[in-house]
Amino acid sequence: MHHASNLPVVQIVHRPGVLDLGWGHPDPAVLPVTVLQRATATVLARYGADALAYGAERGPGPLIEWLCTRLMDTDARAPEPADVVITAGASQALDLLCSLCTTPGDPVLVESPTYHLAVRILRDHPLDLIAVPSDADGIDVAALEALLARMARRGKRARMLYFIPTHHNPTGVCMSLERRKALAALAAQYGVLLVEDDVYRELSYDAPAPPSVWSLAPPGTVARIGSFSKSLAPGLRLGYLTADASLTRRLIGSGLLDSGGGLNPFVALTVAEVCTSGDFDRTVAYLHATYRERRDALADGLRDYLPPGCRFTVPGGGFFQWVELPAEIDAGALLSCAEKTGVSYLPGSRFYLDAPRHNTLRLAFSLYPPHQLVEAARRLGEAITTGA
Amino acid sequence: MHHASNLPVVQIVHRPGVLDLGWGHPDPAVLPVTVLQRATATVLARYGADALAYGAERGPGPLIEWLCTRLMDTDARAPEPADVVITAGASQALDLLCSLCTTPGDPVLVESPTYHLAVRILRDHPLDLIAVPSDADGIDVAALEALLARMARRGKRARMLYFIPTHHNPTGVCMSLERRKALAALAAQYGVLLVEDDVYRELSYDAPAPPSVWSLAPPGTVARIGSFSKSLAPGLRLGYLTADASLTRRLIGSGLLDSGGGLNPFVALTVAEVCTSGDFDRTVAYLHATYRERRDALADGLRDYLPPGCRFTVPGGGFFQWVELPAEIDAGALLSCAEKTGVSYLPGSRFYLDAPRHNTLRLAFSLYPPHQLVEAARRLGEAITTGA
Repeated sequence: MHHASNLPVVQIVHRPGVLDLGWGHPDPAVLPVTVLQRATATVLARYGADALAYGAERGPGPLIEWLCTRLMDTDARAPEPADVVITAGASQALDLLCSLCTTPGDPVLVESPTYHLAVRILRDHPLDLIAVPSDADGIDVAALEALLARMARRGKRARMLYFIPTHHNPTGVCMSLERRKALAALAAQYGVLLVEDDVYRELSYDAPAPPSVWSLAPPGTVARIGSFSKSLAPGLRLGYLTADASLTRRLIGSGLLDSGGGLNPFVALTVAEVCTSGDFDRTVAYLHATYRERRDALADGLRDYLPPGCRFTVPGGGFFQWVELPAEIDAGALLSCAEKTGVSYLPGSRFYLDAPRHNTLRLAFSLYPPHQLVEAARRLGEAITTGA
Repeated sequence: MHHASNLPVVQIVHRPGVLDLGWGHPDPAVLPVTVLQRATATVLARYGADALAYGAERGPGPLIEWLCTRLMDTDARAPEPADVVITAGASQALDLLCSLCTTPGDPVLVESPTYHLAVRILRDHPLDLIAVPSDADGIDVAALEALLARMARRGKRARMLYFIPTHHNPTGVCMSLERRKALAALAAQYGVLLVEDDVYRELSYDAPAPPSVWSLAPPGTVARIGSFSKSLAPGLRLGYLTADASLTRRLIGSGLLDSGGGLNPFVALTVAEVCTSGDFDRTVAYLHATYRERRDALADGLRDYLPPGCRFTVPGGGFFQWVELPAEIDAGALLSCAEKTGVSYLPGSRFYLDAPRHNTLRLAFSLYPPHQLVEAARRLGEAITTGA
């Protein structure tokens, strides 16, 4: 590895001696370098200058067509090409929806706990965020219905609802099918745009991922956000969105997409080659095997080493293991002791909009091989026992 | 060329028989395919997984350091690394500034005429746009001063001013040095953030580009937006921003940059390799020679074929030749006749915020080789003579 500069290339910062399960990043060892070498060379040879020109606003045809076919297999409904927009990552899709579909101060509902950086994107716009409670089956739809009715009586309408129904970050929960259907109906009734963060669909380890809420909902109710960051590589900055054609038309007619000629056309064409060549399937199969083993190793370690009173449910996919400590332990207060013991994590309180449960924490099992995850669990158990 | 799909890959739409000088796109023949083949292969071999990981929020060190050195040569002031943010194109830099530095309804000043798609980005946010007049030396700073004073008396403050001082799109004008200095002082006095669209700096054909307003202004007055779309390839979606460190901190601390791990890290590292290998210099030298010849061929054709009463000034850089027709001719009304004659352009009225001058039009000399530009000029002359 050669870095021409003292400024960093990558985002992650390694701390010697600390197994840092706070980073929700893939292990560099699993990133498909050879696959990308092949795809970039093929795309530049096949498309020549077309790979470097201003791209179609919606994204390149080959990737859109592949996605439509792929979602026929991995979801309960396939989009039409007119329902798809290729984006420079899931975060940008969310940012774009905020810019084009909301006005600062709009009430926006957010499942809580949730992905903390999505909250920061929403706040950057800045929206008036309202927490929606969730439990082991996902969003509490009855509580949401009561909230929407209360808002309606005060003449207020929520503009959007941001949520992660599949292999949730941070909790790992999959929303039940019944709740998915009830949520779709409720959103349609109240005119709330559901923004479904669906970035872990390809990383479902035990069974196919459940149908997206987008696939179950009446047209125009849901904008579903997907990503290649988890299934290929985050540095590519590539994602997509499926939504009603009227919404995708609004996006591709925006100044940003028209002026830029799409959001990341060279990378999108490269990823299309990865996908249509079969390399995507092979990469995802490898990631399934790798991450399943890591998830299980971490769960085994937690079972062996966490003291009584700790609870966790092993997730069916994604990157994250959510842990509940005994009620009297504050995971934020425990952190410095844990880091002295050589393990780190994100305190769960960071993921709540309000009423944080201070005895929770998030562990990512994506970054380390199995034996280090077991050691991380051991150190965490030691920190809880000695530090609490 | 093989397209796996019927959906388009590129943005441009070709119309048989029409020389379409409306597109401000590079000729596919000049896009550096071989350079990108070399750079992608080198970057993946050298950095391996680091090229595919979540990137540093500000952008990769090697590109930032190269930019600091480059601007020492091509501008009157070199930024510090803390003054730079790498973006996914100039359009995204503008979009991000709108999201993070404005609130919908804020008064924002826009030089008129200006790049029409920048206006669409500003309107998407949506801001209250106020036109600032310009002439052959750029923004009319005296008129701007009167406008700012008038606004101040009504208790209003402009949040930003968007302008293109160097090889303007669409007019080709370079703002005079005196006006640059006066504008910087005025903006500092009134607390207006100058958003300097500087995407044509590398495409200066007769002399070095003038100092950016960013280089002349007191700290914190200007955010300057640069791009690799014109100097390398638009499909890469790579640009940058130089601004005060306090503003770049705000940008890199945003949810979008933190969640995404920078805005386009794999491409940014690839472009860093293009730049540090010397390929960037060679590409830009080739583009200078190519575009200078095209600019001159179009100007020669216009001199030969435009009827009396047409006026134009040959620009010193960029992609665009602005033409004034006799006052009684409406370039919008003339367009269908011109297209029947086999030439197209963008009517100048599209670039004005208010009080459009209907007898103006924009021709791009970037897309066609010299002999076709001469033929386009001939057809334009014929259309004006027969159609008006």
